[in-house]
Amino acid sequence: MTKSILTFGFFFFSLAAISQVRDEGAIKQIFDEALSKGKSYEMLTDLCVNIGPRLSGSPGAAASVEWSRHVMEGFGFDSVWLQPVLVPHWVRGTKEIGRINSKKRGTVEVNVCSLGGSVSTGPAGIAAGIVEVKNFDELKLLGTKGVQGKIVFFNRAMDPTKLNTFAAYGGAVDQRGNGSSEAAKYGAVAVLVRSMGSNLEDYPHTGNMRYAPNVTKIPALAISTRHAELVSKLLKDEKDLQFYMENHSVTLEDAPSFNVVGEIKGSEFPNEIIVVGGHLDSWDLGQGAHDDGAGCVQSIEVLRLFNAIGYKPKRTIRAVMFMNEENGLRGGNAYAELAAKNKEQHIAAIESDRGGFVPRGFTVPTEEKAKAKVRSWKPLLEPYGLSDFSEEGGGADIGPLASQGVALLGFLPDSQRYFNYHHSAEDTIDKVDKRELELGAASMAAMVYLIDKYGLK
Amino acid sequence: MTKSILTFGFFFFSLAAISQVRDEGAIKQIFDEALSKGKSYEMLTDLCVNIGPRLSGSPGAAASVEWSRHVMEGFGFDSVWLQPVLVPHWVRGTKEIGRINSKKRGTVEVNVCSLGGSVSTGPAGIAAGIVEVKNFDELKLLGTKGVQGKIVFFNRAMDPTKLNTFAAYGGAVDQRGNGSSEAAKYGAVAVLVRSMGSNLEDYPHTGNMRYAPNVTKIPALAISTRHAELVSKLLKDEKDLQFYMENHSVTLEDAPSFNVVGEIKGSEFPNEIIVVGGHLDSWDLGQGAHDDGAGCVQSIEVLRLFNAIGYKPKRTIRAVMFMNEENGLRGGNAYAELAAKNKEQHIAAIESDRGGFVPRGFTVPTEEKAKAKVRSWKPLLEPYGLSDFSEEGGGADIGPLASQGVALLGFLPDSQRYFNYHHSAEDTIDKVDKRELELGAASMAAMVYLIDKYGLK
Repeated sequence: MTKSILTFGFFFFSLAAISQVRDEGAIKQIFDEALSKGKSYEMLTDLCVNIGPRLSGSPGAAASVEWSRHVMEGFGFDSVWLQPVLVPHWVRGTKEIGRINSKKRGTVEVNVCSLGGSVSTGPAGIAAGIVEVKNFDELKLLGTKGVQGKIVFFNRAMDPTKLNTFAAYGGAVDQRGNGSSEAAKYGAVAVLVRSMGSNLEDYPHTGNMRYAPNVTKIPALAISTRHAELVSKLLKDEKDLQFYMENHSVTLEDAPSFNVVGEIKGSEFPNEIIVVGGHLDSWDLGQGAHDDGAGCVQSIEVLRLFNAIGYKPKRTIRAVMFMNEENGLRGGNAYAELAAKNKEQHIAAIESDRGGFVPRGFTVPTEEKAKAKVRSWKPLLEPYGLSDFSEEGGGADIGPLASQGVALLGFLPDSQRYFNYHHSAEDTIDKVDKRELELGAASMAAMVYLIDKYGLK
Repeated sequence: MTKSILTFGFFFFSLAAISQVRDEGAIKQIFDEALSKGKSYEMLTDLCVNIGPRLSGSPGAAASVEWSRHVMEGFGFDSVWLQPVLVPHWVRGTKEIGRINSKKRGTVEVNVCSLGGSVSTGPAGIAAGIVEVKNFDELKLLGTKGVQGKIVFFNRAMDPTKLNTFAAYGGAVDQRGNGSSEAAKYGAVAVLVRSMGSNLEDYPHTGNMRYAPNVTKIPALAISTRHAELVSKLLKDEKDLQFYMENHSVTLEDAPSFNVVGEIKGSEFPNEIIVVGGHLDSWDLGQGAHDDGAGCVQSIEVLRLFNAIGYKPKRTIRAVMFMNEENGLRGGNAYAELAAKNKEQHIAAIESDRGGFVPRGFTVPTEEKAKAKVRSWKPLLEPYGLSDFSEEGGGADIGPLASQGVALLGFLPDSQRYFNYHHSAEDTIDKVDKRELELGAASMAAMVYLIDKYGLK
């Protein structure tokens, strides 16, 4: 009896040990393939150089849809298809003008760009006094008396002491998102917003802004962090500093577009779906290299890696290129709606939308059991630099799947350089390192491998 | 009795808890200062742009000595001084020529550079057949019959599947260091070595090579990884491919130079010294930004950070800019010799010579007690991304201190991008990220703080 229990125990112990060795081997195969023959960088170079910017509704976005379909068909995935989605269509127009008119210093041109969704100043531009605030409380204190007829300059920097730059971004981005509507309440004629950038730089960063209902729509422009410092410095010396701005953006009719989906059918549980995804649309100033071409090519690469190492997943694995994350999330919403309508059973979704930087870990599902299971895999992933499994939650595009009980994870690359490039003309392929990008794809593939093999229940 | 033991135990528990809270606070102060007002990037920009390359014996090296002294004096360290050291003086001369002469393809220029220490081909250059090998075993198999009168082309790539690129470098660099002497044994007239680079690139990487005693000195040039692939491809198709190379390097008399040392005197144990250091010399092709301007400015910044946050170290802290790490290690040797001669008591030395990338951890001392102590601090450092304390040993410049029983540590930044730039014209300031660099300095300061406070015994 005792012997048989021992034997039985040993048997299970051995099985577990064998299983771990197999997992280590499979994960090593994934990383070896990605680092020696990975295609992420080649794909991203093609997307950035030959298509470039691809804001929702633009010709670039349409081209990127066809590009994704073509690439995934080329890799021979089991099926590739498009999901129609109607997207907002905002167009920047000709280059913006920002100009300080100082009595003491004369005219100084500064680098500005329209925020996504902003109305235009009209061809005559807007010339007005400028008043600086750091937050909405300061704005409120100034009130109508201090703001009426002026340009409000939001100049709260991202907090550099926050280790995670996304936390610093989160602490500053209300100025960009809601600044214009807040300022309009007090009669401001326009807003100028310090760019969401980690450092002092010469180029502005765009990004989405929203108009609140029943508030006058006033133009909203971003200014480079270095020029924000300049305006602030001059304002200290000259309270009635004048500013001129001009932008030519326009919002057109919603445009037809698509999510692009590629799939490898599961061998045992084809109805259980694991999604890996990024968003195909990008802001119009750069090439959308880190945001989020990286996430797209990494998602495609996960499926390619499985094929390349001959791994047949038990569950169905989908790479999803979401459309319109930047200014509407229509693609993410449409994907989740269609999944519900078709009664699809998604067991997990992993998003990559924090850039193609060196891997650090994953954000984990909020549900306790799934969270514990993901964290239990840390010993298998830590040798590849994946040691951070502290944060919970997924990402914007997979967020709408939460209500269907899908376990959401996010790929977590290092965050230090992300906001150097984010939403700016600097988000280009030369800012991406091949090894870092391929390691991200391999990390995502390793996570999908483990979820596919063990589930999350 | 029981109560007093409990009280006693609680007393110590509380002390430990208070101590930990104080350490957390001090380390946060260090990182906050570095991330909001750090000077590493500003210093490195100045060094790279206004001085640039600084190979031992060059005018740039001399300028960088004065620069270091000036910078550290400007920060008001307790003392700053120079340690004389005689260094090798190798000069590249005018730009090298590499040329494939193919019967089928005609003439193709390729990107080459002399390896450091190489003799010259003379003005007439060397034209010869070329034979490819992957390692010294293949060379031996070819023997005199296959090699005599030819240029040997060493073309073993760095293994891309190694996660740590330094391991991949270590597995390939024998070709660069010893290739010429090995090939000369069999009558080769010159060697061409595939650059030590992680990826396919157009620019060559230099680096030191050594001539073995009693072997004919033949010229040794590096070729870019992309052109190495080209030569290899053409050789498959045309066995008697001809190659022409020309270089103009010369080794001059040893030159006088200096290590530069800055110091904050310890308040309690001034005779116990903790060194932080990098090397001031750099290869002549780039600006020596990551290798090792980064380590120099980070070392200076450690002392500046202590002053800035008002931390008075108990022990003496020295920032040492070592001269001649790249092609002689004369500075590292001289520093250790002088320390022994002056009967100085060094308790620890930390080297930063793996680039200014995002922090990952530290290499730890080999001595068991010191190793365990450093690893016990992991919980304090992990919130800053410092989670890898697995590797043992210090670095090249502090190595000579080992025989004096000094605990050696190395700052460990992420390795993925290092060999994109290493020893090439691409090692320039624009490849350095400000936040990553400042985080490295703060990491080193945090480690010095802990060693200063708790010792390593």
